[in-house]
Amino acid sequence: MKRIMITVAYDGTGYNGWQIQPDAPTIEGVLNRELSRLLGEDIHVIGASRTDAGVHAEGAIAVFDTSSSIPADKFSYALNKSLPEDIVIRKSEEVAGDFHPRRVDCKKTYRYSIWHDVFPMPVNSRYTHWVHYPLDPGRMKEAAAFFTGEHDFAAFCSANADASSTVRRVYDMKVEYGPPFSRSDGRSYYGRIDIFVTGSGFLYNMVRIIAGTLIEAGEGRIKSGDIPGIIDSCDRDRAGDTAPAKGLTLIGYEFG
Amino acid sequence: MKRIMITVAYDGTGYNGWQIQPDAPTIEGVLNRELSRLLGEDIHVIGASRTDAGVHAEGAIAVFDTSSSIPADKFSYALNKSLPEDIVIRKSEEVAGDFHPRRVDCKKTYRYSIWHDVFPMPVNSRYTHWVHYPLDPGRMKEAAAFFTGEHDFAAFCSANADASSTVRRVYDMKVEYGPPFSRSDGRSYYGRIDIFVTGSGFLYNMVRIIAGTLIEAGEGRIKSGDIPGIIDSCDRDRAGDTAPAKGLTLIGYEFG
Repeated sequence: MKRIMITVAYDGTGYNGWQIQPDAPTIEGVLNRELSRLLGEDIHVIGASRTDAGVHAEGAIAVFDTSSSIPADKFSYALNKSLPEDIVIRKSEEVAGDFHPRRVDCKKTYRYSIWHDVFPMPVNSRYTHWVHYPLDPGRMKEAAAFFTGEHDFAAFCSANADASSTVRRVYDMKVEYGPPFSRSDGRSYYGRIDIFVTGSGFLYNMVRIIAGTLIEAGEGRIKSGDIPGIIDSCDRDRAGDTAPAKGLTLIGYEFG
Repeated sequence: MKRIMITVAYDGTGYNGWQIQPDAPTIEGVLNRELSRLLGEDIHVIGASRTDAGVHAEGAIAVFDTSSSIPADKFSYALNKSLPEDIVIRKSEEVAGDFHPRRVDCKKTYRYSIWHDVFPMPVNSRYTHWVHYPLDPGRMKEAAAFFTGEHDFAAFCSANADASSTVRRVYDMKVEYGPPFSRSDGRSYYGRIDIFVTGSGFLYNMVRIIAGTLIEAGEGRIKSGDIPGIIDSCDRDRAGDTAPAKGLTLIGYEFG
């Protein structure tokens, strides 16, 4: 028996999220089905994160146990032959038998992508949240700085979460954007705005609520200086809306 | 009568290119149909470039004449209501009645995007050409430098082209890429590699043949120092293959 870790990329548009469900297509469901078929064993992957419906990944992580004699790095080649085009195994490798991807220290990075213009952009509309109202990404950047460090993020967690603790550490926040351009409505737009969040782990919907809060900061509806008070309040109603799933992409993990 | 210029973005995946055809969906065909329906006139747009089947655009340009009283900047709003999701009018504005988008001096910029890894990447596979063999983007960059300036680009033009002259000026070439990562096959991969080409105009398939030639330079099959000789030869057989359409995106125009 050996434990294999796979790095998985997917376009989440057509899936009901990571976690297996009886009557809806999910990433975990497809991986279990195709791995079981490939190996002739009953395979159940353990994912490092359970992304929501519509969320994408460039580097999700999962492990599974198998008695197969396929060399660890060849599982990716074998599995990609039968997976649908919107799910790809980028890498497969052997890990220690007791390696559990949700019980090890790691840094996870997510990107939340916004398209800021009068109209949406076809070539990125599957992967960005379109915002057409005035937005100042400089203010978003100011607000983002207040999230780093260890905090109780209860205000940034959806109500149906069952986490035992709502304390998390945010290692790094970045807001990247290009120069503005003006439109006939007299306003400035910034095109693509990317928010990168790196943390020890995230509560349910946490990155999307941080993104929604930064958007409200960009609109001027929340002042960046108010962010510490919103965090301290532990009051979900004081943070911004949960930004739409399609703008969120799980970029990857750094272990150890 | 006034002449309106529209800036058009599209995902070219589902279209047989720009130019109107009787039995296949094309960007020009959809624009003519929806503009004619909106304005109650028989509208024929004149495009600045005719992109091939599967090529994308962030900023294509076209003009049309209308006697409509709709303010110039409102055509975009009106037209976007009826266009399919994969075509968006980013901007509409009035131009001089004799402005012809193929008869004015301008700089056009295209991006050719490659995904370099063992496996494809679902979140960009519609917009990048997947290359899995060894590629050194440093060599691609070296080779790219030889394309700038005014040259006879006959070697970089598909045979069925009917251009009266094959001389074009390339103002700028850029090859952008991130740090390499290694895979279990012992090779280095670079993930996304973007080639930007800015020129006075391009021959049929010219950007895709330049991209294909740079890929062969990255593979080491063509030496960067051989590029001037390939250009001078005016021999299509000496340049690289025509890279696939899906990796090509028309970024935009700079007039005057």
